[in-house]
Parts: sequence; structure tokens; C-alpha cells
Amino acid sequence: MTEIADYKQAFIRNNWYAAAWRREIDTRPLARTILGERLALFPTKEGGIGALKDQCPHRLAPLSMGECIDGGLRCGYHGLLFNASGACINVPGQDFIPTTAKVKSYPVRERLGLVWVWMGDAEPDESRLPSIPQHGEPGWALLQDGYQHHAANYRIEIENLMDPAHTTYLHKQTIGNPAAKDVPVQVERNERSISAFRWMERTPPSPFDKQSRDFGDGLVDRMVSFSFELPGVSFVEVCSMPTGLDKTEDNKNLGLRTLSYKFLTPEDERHTHFFWLHLRNHRLDDTAYEQQLRAGLEKTYVEDNQVASAIQIEQERCGKRQFTGLKIDHAPTMALRLLDTMIADEQATAVA
Amino acid sequence: MTEIADYKQAFIRNNWYAAAWRREIDTRPLARTILGERLALFPTKEGGIGALKDQCPHRLAPLSMGECIDGGLRCGYHGLLFNASGACINVPGQDFIPTTAKVKSYPVRERLGLVWVWMGDAEPDESRLPSIPQHGEPGWALLQDGYQHHAANYRIEIENLMDPAHTTYLHKQTIGNPAAKDVPVQVERNERSISAFRWMERTPPSPFDKQSRDFGDGLVDRMVSFSFELPGVSFVEVCSMPTGLDKTEDNKNLGLRTLSYKFLTPEDERHTHFFWLHLRNHRLDDTAYEQQLRAGLEKTYVEDNQVASAIQIEQERCGKRQFTGLKIDHAPTMALRLLDTMIADEQATAVA
Amino acid sequence: MTEIADYKQAFIRNNWYAAAWRREIDTRPLARTILGERLALFPTKEGGIGALKDQCPHRLAPLSMGECIDGGLRCGYHGLLFNASGACINVPGQDFIPTTAKVKSYPVRERLGLVWVWMGDAEPDESRLPSIPQHGEPGWALLQDGYQHHAANYRIEIENLMDPAHTTYLHKQTIGNPAAKDVPVQVERNERSISAFRWMERTPPSPFDKQSRDFGDGLVDRMVSFSFELPGVSFVEVCSMPTGLDKTEDNKNLGLRTLSYKFLTPEDERHTHFFWLHLRNHRLDDTAYEQQLRAGLEKTYVEDNQVASAIQIEQERCGKRQFTGLKIDHAPTMALRLLDTMIADEQATAVA
Repeated sequence: MTEIADYKQAFIRNNWYAAAWRREIDTRPLARTILGERLALFPTKEGGIGALKDQCPHRLAPLSMGECIDGGLRCGYHGLLFNASGACINVPGQDFIPTTAKVKSYPVRERLGLVWVWMGDAEPDESRLPSIPQHGEPGWALLQDGYQHHAANYRIEIENLMDPAHTTYLHKQTIGNPAAKDVPVQVERNERSISAFRWMERTPPSPFDKQSRDFGDGLVDRMVSFSFELPGVSFVEVCSMPTGLDKTEDNKNLGLRTLSYKFLTPEDERHTHFFWLHLRNHRLDDTAYEQQLRAGLEKTYVEDNQVASAIQIEQERCGKRQFTGLKIDHAPTMALRLLDTMIADEQATAVA
Repeated sequence: MTEIADYKQAFIRNNWYAAAWRREIDTRPLARTILGERLALFPTKEGGIGALKDQCPHRLAPLSMGECIDGGLRCGYHGLLFNASGACINVPGQDFIPTTAKVKSYPVRERLGLVWVWMGDAEPDESRLPSIPQHGEPGWALLQDGYQHHAANYRIEIENLMDPAHTTYLHKQTIGNPAAKDVPVQVERNERSISAFRWMERTPPSPFDKQSRDFGDGLVDRMVSFSFELPGVSFVEVCSMPTGLDKTEDNKNLGLRTLSYKFLTPEDERHTHFFWLHLRNHRLDDTAYEQQLRAGLEKTYVEDNQVASAIQIEQERCGKRQFTGLKIDHAPTMALRLLDTMIADEQATAVA
Repeated sequence: MTEIADYKQAFIRNNWYAAAWRREIDTRPLARTILGERLALFPTKEGGIGALKDQCPHRLAPLSMGECIDGGLRCGYHGLLFNASGACINVPGQDFIPTTAKVKSYPVRERLGLVWVWMGDAEPDESRLPSIPQHGEPGWALLQDGYQHHAANYRIEIENLMDPAHTTYLHKQTIGNPAAKDVPVQVERNERSISAFRWMERTPPSPFDKQSRDFGDGLVDRMVSFSFELPGVSFVEVCSMPTGLDKTEDNKNLGLRTLSYKFLTPEDERHTHFFWLHLRNHRLDDTAYEQQLRAGLEKTYVEDNQVASAIQIEQERCGKRQFTGLKIDHAPTMALRLLDTMIADEQATAVA
């Protein structure tokens, strides 16, 4: 059906991509490849983060093999010192600094404990930085620092994340549900995102819910929602709340809520950085539960990577993405179509 | 001399290839690549074996990552269920099964403890399944389940197996014989096979023969025969029998006989599945001897793989197969010429 | 700046390349790739070394998988025996030796404990074999058998070896000197070599010098010289001698001298054999010091390989060698230009 060849390398460039957890960058520079470009991340004098092309313009040594000195990055080969804007500010052995002694720098922001890098040539758009109202708020417990390296193009990851139907089979050991009744049915397309959700009213609480709270013999209203802010932010919410209430934020907070975020950053056309964090409004101080929860999520994402990386290999082998379409493809297909539109728009703008 | 480029990928397709030992396929599907095609093998409801292309038509997940359910194969990603003829018989989440929801299936037979797969488009030819009259018969001991993965094109393996002259040098630690007197001299070409043999009459029994039977001070008539049913079945027989008798099957059974079979299945143009079994009519219940025999055969085939895989690399490096021809090339050359003829015939038929 | 594509594979062929330490070749043949050609080295009947193309002309088995027999090399597959001039002198199973049964042989010399191979088609030029007057002389201690496999084109290695400026940064744990005052300033170009040196008169001895000899509170005259005989011999000398003397060999021997040699042999366009030896005229019998010295040199060369192999990858990735030039590039640039001239001369001669 669909060919893979023509968009293998198609990335949206004017976007904030999660590059690292802030705590990954300490006193040593960090090498990370994003959209096929190699970056060196390092701490600046002001306590922020700098992001430079990971290649000294002199002999091409990776700057990430150098040292963080005085808020700059010093090449480990001949000692050229660069500041966070990519200017060379010292060349050992000579006073004159050539105008060619410079490297590309990338705009950097910190948010949600993550370092975000703007990869495009357009002006960085602050409004596009992801925000999570509950992040850091009282009443919410945070699992963070989640990271996996996935061996698949980010489109395969998007299909996976917009597709709850697979949990019954791929994740039957973890979050799978034989009934698969939680599949959202309403799908909405917005300017840069796709969302799908479903409310099941007056339904028995799940065994998992019962484990977290005593609902007695009562029923709950249960919601599952999936959304994807393209090209990289996946958000899944599950909420079980007392029946008969309006579906407001405040009322939802009376129930059990979990907010699961994944931030996808293409490393190159075959690999994806998979950052994740998880918020919940219950069992806040239950450490044993939290360890079990983290292990379960990690296992689930490992299962996703196993199938995604196998699909990556098959797509490259046969040059196709699929040979038959199903009803469950509805949301993933909408997401990829919107992505294609966004990429085409960006490229049209760049040419104009 | 001969170029390698033009037939690197030339396989005979209308043929039964050994795909697996039957006992390799239990409750889990088995992935195996044959002629560059990836197959998933699995047990069917009737106790047989199904062979499907190892790729779900939906998202291309390998079916071998799925489960054997109800005699079918269920994709591990979204649960599509396929039967042994490749038809999709269930799609979770919808009642309608798209006509495109199907995969290629391969004819399968079981024989000699092995699973055989027909890789061509022509009607499977039952008469081409290999048979061994002594297999399973009383008076014969069987070594089976032999398997090695060899890193060479199957043509290099054919040359090796039709060439007893190398045993003196390559296998000097195992079956090598400094005198190399056992080399067959008569070579015959048949429709799909090459055979070569030699009888040495009234010759002293080998030390190995003496170890297996007390010949007194007497002499034996000794035969070595090599044959190759193209493209994949190698058969080597060694027989030491009392002198002066007619060379009938019954009389040969009075002596020491070993029948050594190898079944070659190209995995791709650079790798070959090497299945083997071994029959003998002596020391039937000698377990210690049998262990030693198996270890010796395994070591011999490892030596073959070492040189074959080195040759594979050299052939690819220089684009040639050889620069000088020798007398010992007679049988291997006949075998490869016959193979070329068979491939050309098959391709001419396919076009016609 | 400079493109890498056009000279990636440009080697000087008419040259003696270090192929192995003599003691690497004992009773087994040694496989080594030089300028992309695979050689088998083996001991001859006369106690010398033979060098043949590592490929039997019959089935292409590597001769290095064979055996050293009677001063020749016997193929491990079918037993063809070759002498050191590449002629086949025995074919098992036949009396006639085909004229095509031969392999290319390479001229070989032994010097400085190393085996040298002439890779070109021109007559071997004995005068080009490297010589070291102090090698084997009384009063000098020798560290030899040094070898590392470096994952970079030899040009990157040449730049590294002609560039003392990097020691301050790359080797700050070992031989680095924060002041970098030892950088030579005078650079000379000769017919096939580049040399650079600097005398610092009446300077305090280094801590390292003081460790080796008690200079009291006195001063020394200190010299550092670098030279490179293209394409493969690097020589670095450091000398600290009493002040006020003429700079003759005899007077230099009154001081502390170290002579450091590296012999580069391109394995292929991405890898370099890095042989090294080291001579000193002090602490001749100090075993503990010698062990420490060897370990320090090995670590330094490992650091060189780390940056060189990273640069190799970057050069291939972007197709360039550098984007800005510095003063410290003077000597390396002269060396590579001379190398280009030599390669062009050799190729012009070959065509003519």
C-alpha cells in the first residue's frame, strides 16, 4: 500500500524536541543525535544549557569529547573554546580568531525537567513548548527521567501510541485488557493534534482501580483519552470518577487519574529517543507501588520497541508500510496525514 | 576465472527445502529464512505444520512474534488470526475481514524427521521428497537433529561436499587420511544428480574399521561413494565388506556401512542452513561411540564452515570464484554445471 | 574546506611498509592487510620471511589458514604448496602444475626488528629502508614490539604526529604540558620529509627530567624535534643537555635523550597499523621505570586513536576535512601537501 521511501527522512524541523533530561547534563558534555544531526549539550556559566553542533570546525573532533570550561565547551584535541552561541572565544597558540572558527548553535529551553532544542531555522516559538498544568502541583506524584532508545522511525511510534487496540495483544502481560472495551471512539483533529476519547458511564471499577481505592460495590464513570500533539508529544489519560457528576477538572480530581506523557525525538530515520513521565493523583507516597508502576511501564515500552523495531526492518525490507487497512487504523492514519500536511506546509514555507 | 556476480542469487525455487527439524516446532512459532524469504512455521490443528510468510499484512509485524492459537497463527501486535493457508480468519474489533488481509502460504511436508517447504510457484512434486530406505529400519542406528548455520553461498557448500580430496588437509584432525586413496574416480551425471564412487578390492581394513569389528588378519572390499541430488541433498556412503562377494545391498549389509546425509537450504545468497543425519549398521547400542561420532562429525562440519565462509568473503571481495582449475574439481564442476542447467530450465519454464 | 573524497584511497605504493614485528611470525602464518591487500606472512626455509597474497588461486581459501611446511606455505583446503616467490610447487592428486597455479609475492626485508614489505611494482629501493643509528648500540635502551590498530586513515595520523600542539589538551593526563612551550617553530621541507624543531636555551629542566637526573639548581638547553619521512615514519626527539655546549651528537649524548619512532602502515582507507619503538640513553636498567614508560606511551597512543577514529567518522559523514585553519596547522599541512605531490609523482610515473 503506502510506500515508505518518500518520507523516510521527512522531519518537522521548526519544533522543540526533547533532547535530554536536565540531570543528564552535569559537568561533562553530552552527545545526542537529533534529526540526524549530532549535538553536544553542556552547562553554561549562567546555569543553563548550551547546544552546539558536535564537531569542531578545525579538525572535526566531536566537541562532546572535550571539556566544560568557564561556561563554554573546549575541544579536547587542540583546545579551541566555544561559547553557547557557537562563537570561538579562544584559540591556543594564536591571538587571532578566524571568522570561520564557529559552530552552529541551537536554541535551548528547559521545561518539565527536560532540555528542549529548537531544530529549525525559523524563530523559536515559545508557545509551542509543552506544558502540563498538574506538573509540580500538590496532590500529584511524578515519575520522571524515563528514557528508552527505540530502533524505529518515529512514524511507527506515532501509530503505536495512537492505537490503544494493540494493548490487548502486545501488552497482555502488563496493561493488556482482553475485552479491549476501553478503545476510544470519538476522534478529533485539531490544528496540530489528534485526540480520541471515550466515557463509559456507570461501569464497574477495574481490578486495578479497586486496588487503589475502595469503591465499595459502587460503579464509576470511566474515561480513556489519547492525544498526540504532532510531531512528538503523546498524552494518555485514564480517569475513574464517581458516577453522576459533571466532567469538570475538579470533579475528575475526585476520582483516580493517571496522566501518561511520552516525548518522541527522532534520532535519525531509523531510531527514536523515547522520553516519558507519568503523573497520578493517588497513592502518592506508596513507594512500593511506585516501583512496581515504573517497572510495569518500562516493560510495556520495551514491548512496544520490540514490535516497532521489527516493523522498521520489515518496512525497509519490502519498501511498504502496510498491505491491508483496518478500522483500528482510524486515529493513527489521521495522525500521520496531519503530520504529512504539517511537513508539507513547513517545506512550502521554507521554499517561499 | 568464473565470475560470481551473475548467479549470486540464483536459486532453484521449485524444490522441497529442509526448513526445520520437526521437533524444533513445539508450541511457539519458529522464524526461518529460506531463499531470502522469511517464513513463520507453526503447528496446525491437525498436528501438522503450517508455513506462512513471516509478515502480518496489516503493520508488517513478524507473525513469528505472535502466538499459536487454535491451529492458527495470531499476530502479536493486533491479534489478526491466520490459518495455515494464509487466510485471515479473525480481526479483533471488526466483523468484516478485508480481502487484502492474507499472507502467502507454502506447501509443507514432513519426512525423515524434517519439515520440508516447497518454495516455487509450480505444483509441489511429491516424488522429489527425499527418501532413505534404511531410515527407521531395524539394524540401523540413527543420528539426527544435526544442524549448523554456515556463512557461505550454497554453491561453495556443494563444491565442498562433492570434493573428498579436501579431507586430507582440512579435516586432518578428524576424518582426514594422509593417503587420500579413497577418492572416487568414476563420476556419473544423472538428470538431477551427480554421483561418484570407487571400490577398492582386497584392501586392508582401516584402523577405524578394525575398531568397529574384528576382521582378523583378513582383507575387505571397500567402497566410498558420493552423490548429490541437486540442489540440496548430499549423500556419502562408506562400506567395508567381506571380499569376494557380489556388491548387492544384502551383501553390503554384511559389512560395515555408514550413510551420511546433509540437506542444504540456502538462507540467502551468503548463508546456508546445514541439516545432517547419519545412519550406521554397526555398534548400534554403543552410546559412548555414538557421542564420539556425533562430536567428530560436528567438528568436521565446523571446519568446512570455516573455510567456506572465508571463501565466501574472498569471492565477494574479488568477484571471482577461482583462478586455477585442478583435476579434483571434476565432480564439483559437473555438479555446478548441472545446477546452472537446472536453474536455466526452471527460469525458461517460468517465463514461458 | 578540503574534500576527502578524491584521495581516500590514495596510497604511495613504491614504499617499504612495516608489516609485522619479526617475532609475530613463528611457526604459523600471519594474516595482515596492507593498502587494502591481504597478505600472508610466513617463515621461509632460509630463516627469512615470505609474503604472499593471502588467497589460494584454486578456491580462494586464505593461505594464512594453512600451514608452514618446508619453508613454504600450504593451503589448508586442498594442500597446494607455494614457495616464497609465489610459485605452486605441489598439487596433491596430480603431477602437472597448471601455469595459473601461482600467487603474487611481495619483496620482504627485515630491519629494526620489523618485517618490511614493498607494495609497489617498481624495483624495491633498499636505500629507503628506515635506519636508526642508535638502534642496538650500547648506551641505549630499547622499547620495542609496540603495536596498535588505529581506526583512521593514515592522513589523520600524520596530522596528529606532526602536530605537537595537541598534547596540551588530548594528552593532559600523560605527556601534556599546560604551557605548550615545547612547540617547534622552524619547519623544513626536504625531498620526502618534513622536519620541525626548537631549541630552548638556558631553561629550567622539566619535572620529568629532574626525575631522571639530578641537575642540581642548574639550567639545561632543551630541544624538541619532530620529523616525518613520508608516507610512514614519524620521529620525535627530545633532548635536555648541559648549557653552553655545541649541539653535536656527542654533546647531546651527555644529556637526556629520547628517540620515539612510529611506523604507520595503512591497512585500508579507514584503518592504520601503528607500530612504535622508543630509545633512551638514561635509566637503562630501571625496569620499573620502563614499565611505567611503556604504559604511558600506550595510553597516549590510545588517546590519539580515540580522537583520530572520531575524526575519521566525521570526515566520512560530512565529506570534508576541516572548516577553519589555524597557525598550528603549518607543519601538518606541509606534510600532507608533500604527500600529495609524492602520490601524484608516483602515479604520473606509473602511467608514463
